[in-house]
Amino acid sequence: MAKKGNIIVGQSGGPTAVINSSLAGVYRNAKERGFDKVYGMIHGIQGLLDEQYVDLSTQIHNELDIELLKRTPSAFLGSCRYKLPEIHEDHAIYEKIFEILKKLEIEVFIYIGGNDSMDTIKKLSDYGILYGHTQKFLGVPKTIDNDLALTDHTPGFGSAAKYIGVATKEVIRDTYGLAYKRKQITIMEIMGRNAGWLTGATALAKTEDCEGPDLIYLPEVPFDLDKFMEKINALLKKKDSIVVAVSEGIKLADGRYVCELGSDNGYVDVFGHKQMGGTASYLANLINAKTGTKTRAVELSTLQRSASHMASRVDIDEAFMVGGAAVKAADEGDTGKMVVIDRVSDDPYMAKTGIYDVHRIANEEKLVPRNWMNKEADYVTEEFVDYVQPLIQGDYQPMMVNGLPRHLVLDLDAASGKKSRKRK
Amino acid sequence: MAKKGNIIVGQSGGPTAVINSSLAGVYRNAKERGFDKVYGMIHGIQGLLDEQYVDLSTQIHNELDIELLKRTPSAFLGSCRYKLPEIHEDHAIYEKIFEILKKLEIEVFIYIGGNDSMDTIKKLSDYGILYGHTQKFLGVPKTIDNDLALTDHTPGFGSAAKYIGVATKEVIRDTYGLAYKRKQITIMEIMGRNAGWLTGATALAKTEDCEGPDLIYLPEVPFDLDKFMEKINALLKKKDSIVVAVSEGIKLADGRYVCELGSDNGYVDVFGHKQMGGTASYLANLINAKTGTKTRAVELSTLQRSASHMASRVDIDEAFMVGGAAVKAADEGDTGKMVVIDRVSDDPYMAKTGIYDVHRIANEEKLVPRNWMNKEADYVTEEFVDYVQPLIQGDYQPMMVNGLPRHLVLDLDAASGKKSRKRK
Repeated sequence: MAKKGNIIVGQSGGPTAVINSSLAGVYRNAKERGFDKVYGMIHGIQGLLDEQYVDLSTQIHNELDIELLKRTPSAFLGSCRYKLPEIHEDHAIYEKIFEILKKLEIEVFIYIGGNDSMDTIKKLSDYGILYGHTQKFLGVPKTIDNDLALTDHTPGFGSAAKYIGVATKEVIRDTYGLAYKRKQITIMEIMGRNAGWLTGATALAKTEDCEGPDLIYLPEVPFDLDKFMEKINALLKKKDSIVVAVSEGIKLADGRYVCELGSDNGYVDVFGHKQMGGTASYLANLINAKTGTKTRAVELSTLQRSASHMASRVDIDEAFMVGGAAVKAADEGDTGKMVVIDRVSDDPYMAKTGIYDVHRIANEEKLVPRNWMNKEADYVTEEFVDYVQPLIQGDYQPMMVNGLPRHLVLDLDAASGKKSRKRK
Repeated sequence: MAKKGNIIVGQSGGPTAVINSSLAGVYRNAKERGFDKVYGMIHGIQGLLDEQYVDLSTQIHNELDIELLKRTPSAFLGSCRYKLPEIHEDHAIYEKIFEILKKLEIEVFIYIGGNDSMDTIKKLSDYGILYGHTQKFLGVPKTIDNDLALTDHTPGFGSAAKYIGVATKEVIRDTYGLAYKRKQITIMEIMGRNAGWLTGATALAKTEDCEGPDLIYLPEVPFDLDKFMEKINALLKKKDSIVVAVSEGIKLADGRYVCELGSDNGYVDVFGHKQMGGTASYLANLINAKTGTKTRAVELSTLQRSASHMASRVDIDEAFMVGGAAVKAADEGDTGKMVVIDRVSDDPYMAKTGIYDVHRIANEEKLVPRNWMNKEADYVTEEFVDYVQPLIQGDYQPMMVNGLPRHLVLDLDAASGKKSRKRK
């Protein structure tokens, strides 16, 4: 077997709880397959253009580091939001990238990310083919939003869905415990501007020991404020505590986002800055003003994508698996492809990796199908729940140090050959 | 030994992650000491006045239920916010309560709660003594805010602090991963209107693998907007990602809450409702308007008090212990007292229960001492961290069912002797 060259791997786009598990999967598989060095781009392609990279063997020393990496949220290497120009628009930038790849003796370039990242893979592999470069370019999917086409689901979604399920159960219990002769309504705002996969995941909270949310609104279907208020008024007659889950991206039939309505009257604060409330706080204020009922807005915030303390084992394992599969595919000669997850069966849940041409993937958006919502589009169906449930199973217990989960952190001193402060 | 009568226990005030562990401690200790029935008030004293109560043996069937109860957030029995009138103001209500206690053959009345709940214990025990009733009235402390006097800390605080520490680490990693050639500032808003114990707990995130927040502002010291902006501008020169923790209750020297400033100009929305932003979103908007830097407001919301999936083992065990200690104290003849936690030593951490007259406790508020903040009052000191750290140690692994933590839920069918739907 000929001696193999080097691999470079980068992370791009919004963080997830398991994007580093894919990185660990790339590293492990590359080492097992006999690749020489595994480089990491610091802050993705944008950092690479500044020649910011690190030899990952200065960061991952042993099996414990691999395990820590699997439990570390957000991009270990740092991420970026950087879209390459079209090839015909700017040759120089491509030449620069391929020069760096040549200097580092890179044979395989792997990019972990969402739609924009797959666009990067597509352009680089196209350029490579056009100009006779031999590097392989492979994409590894990642996004909490689960809106990538052709893959059954995306790594990162299962853990976000699990965290949302857990948080929804806890928020519901919190509000039920307090409601006595005093009604209260809680509006939970969930990430996902166009795709309602995460908002639908609040339905996971509906279990033997929890009623689940009362209403769930996804962004795929226009939001009707009047109908919503009717539903709320009907619920107020029946129960003391009401919990509603809404996507941050719900909008009216006329296209206006609900979160924009609060500033309808042109309210600008003392600093001349247009004040824009969130979707949940707008609806909470609306209900309070119209019914007098006590309301509360709860945004689950960035923890939806970074709560690795509650990540799903299935998700972490699959993220690791797709990382490894990208290395395998490149090693076997593939390029310009993205690894996908194919669901083999629901119960028992089984999945395997597949591989697709990135030209078929880039810039498509997978939304929740209309028939996975109920007729009134204010809840998801059992089919939806059956689809998500296998993806939230199991966990990797965090490695607790002094009461808090330990993460693996990029050690730039070690990377540059200086004596590491982190490993005294 | 004479046959013992019955005990009744209630929960009151805001939820915590461990208030049910105290309930479990009361139940277990009462059974071990040979009390006959253990009743639970449904929604505290307010529910009791409506004769809403349950025989806890219809709810807790075995050791597994005790363990589930320890892992269930929010008040299992339901809570209330109900302040008894002064004795001289309304005799009838006291007569009604004591009538119900007599009917249920109650010997011991235990109330798990914060300041207001201790006020209830004080009034009931005073009334009992005045009118020759023999019941014992005992208080069990509970509040995430840690603002109760005379106890080293309150059950509920440690778990909230642990969750805040974990969330802060994850939020910081999330923002660090994204910041490259694009600065960003995250403002985290933490619960605690008057006391900064929880906001200070964000400093726990400062560990070997995390820088911790850059600035921490407690409500105990007036907030200076100009100084704050100076600090932010200085930090912007030094680093890409800045994370600031603020208490929801910070206010200016003139007494105005920061969260009120956004509505300074009398902004009223289309429904005639005064729009009040949060503290974090006000500051995030302010910084964005003044510096142009991308900002984000993160509120940890009600999960701070109900995230039992990340509760501290020390906290759960102590909550259980103070519940049991209340039963013991009553059994030994105490009344009109609250159980407290005395810290015996810091390292190794050791604590034991003590007992205090509620007349010495009620309606006092324990704030963070000024010398546990730095000179500029924008961070907490090592003494503060040394005080909190022992309280966040260890965990009880959640009992996961189908990917989510299982909780114990009040089963009203079983309570009323009907065949339970929950235990088919």
